[in-house]
Amino acid sequence: MTERAAPIDFYFDFISPYGYLAAARIGEIGARYGRPVAWRPFLLGVTVLQVMGIKPLMETPLKSDYLVVDRPRMAKLLGVPLAIPDLDGVNGVAASRAFYWLAERDEDAARALARRLLERLWVEGRDITDPAVVADEAAALGVSRETLEAALGDPRVKDLLRSAVDAAVARKVFGSPFFIVDGQPVWGVDRLWMVEHWLRHGSWERTPDTPL
Amino acid sequence: MTERAAPIDFYFDFISPYGYLAAARIGEIGARYGRPVAWRPFLLGVTVLQVMGIKPLMETPLKSDYLVVDRPRMAKLLGVPLAIPDLDGVNGVAASRAFYWLAERDEDAARALARRLLERLWVEGRDITDPAVVADEAAALGVSRETLEAALGDPRVKDLLRSAVDAAVARKVFGSPFFIVDGQPVWGVDRLWMVEHWLRHGSWERTPDTPL
Repeated sequence: MTERAAPIDFYFDFISPYGYLAAARIGEIGARYGRPVAWRPFLLGVTVLQVMGIKPLMETPLKSDYLVVDRPRMAKLLGVPLAIPDLDGVNGVAASRAFYWLAERDEDAARALARRLLERLWVEGRDITDPAVVADEAAALGVSRETLEAALGDPRVKDLLRSAVDAAVARKVFGSPFFIVDGQPVWGVDRLWMVEHWLRHGSWERTPDTPL
Repeated sequence: MTERAAPIDFYFDFISPYGYLAAARIGEIGARYGRPVAWRPFLLGVTVLQVMGIKPLMETPLKSDYLVVDRPRMAKLLGVPLAIPDLDGVNGVAASRAFYWLAERDEDAARALARRLLERLWVEGRDITDPAVVADEAAALGVSRETLEAALGDPRVKDLLRSAVDAAVARKVFGSPFFIVDGQPVWGVDRLWMVEHWLRHGSWERTPDTPL
């Protein structure tokens, strides 16, 4: 592409398995249609569920049972490895702060860091809450541990994440993954086909390749 | 098919637009793979949301805005007409009771009645709450108004619906539409492709036709 094509905005929470699964696939889909992907980690549990006034999925009867069945099969359908770690006490605050701090310098590096952290949690099943863990992964990419750990405690960096979460809510993002492409909101990894439908056809009219 | 193939259980609430959209398509998908479809109307709002402890979708901030955008485009993608009636005070109690009562006598007639009621609500945008409206549609199929109206007040028929809702909850059905095929639960009209994937391949392994 010589022209700069409009990006696909990709919202995800590090602690969402469906967000991880989408992260493994969205770049390839975007690339097929010449679209960059703007990664936008946010905090589903801390803020968005409060705005919505609802409980986390895994605390919702019936739906939680469904998710237990659904996560591994969705990983199979996507051809992506998936561990199911215990998420008790796990959050993506440090991971998300590190992402936005690094993205100010180098978006590719920020995405690489996010991928490493997602794989640490969702492939290796290891907790990523601790800033030291985030620093480990950043260090493997050549980012100084000391600089990153200082950044994670910097009020300005905390504000970066807070603003990103507020911006997500302002754009009515309420789930992970959530895509916005050309102003069209699409929620759920199970709707990646809709992202692709829009990229290919630029409309929601039924076509011979609509998979429903 | 000479052998009796296992049915696709198809759960829906009459007042769910996605349930209506699925009803317009699931028979054709089942037929393509030689599977009958067992229609199982239930009451999402009255019972299931109580078990789950959650609010109706249209009262959930952010998600309600999404649904306003999503319903018409999903109808387009499915190639199915969709009106968006005011649902205030509308329920599918009489429609569901009539369905189960008629299904005891004639399953095809019960499905035809359900289709008429769904179209009355979701194509013509007219309320179907009143038992007299249900009787109108039944009469058009040759069912005696008097017999149907008597059945709708019969405690045994009320129990038929109550048992159906309890059975749905016991099978962990929590949304509309909801499919169970060979024990596999699939929630959402946007996942009709998964129902078809299962019918075609009998597994959740990724295949060249997986649309994600």
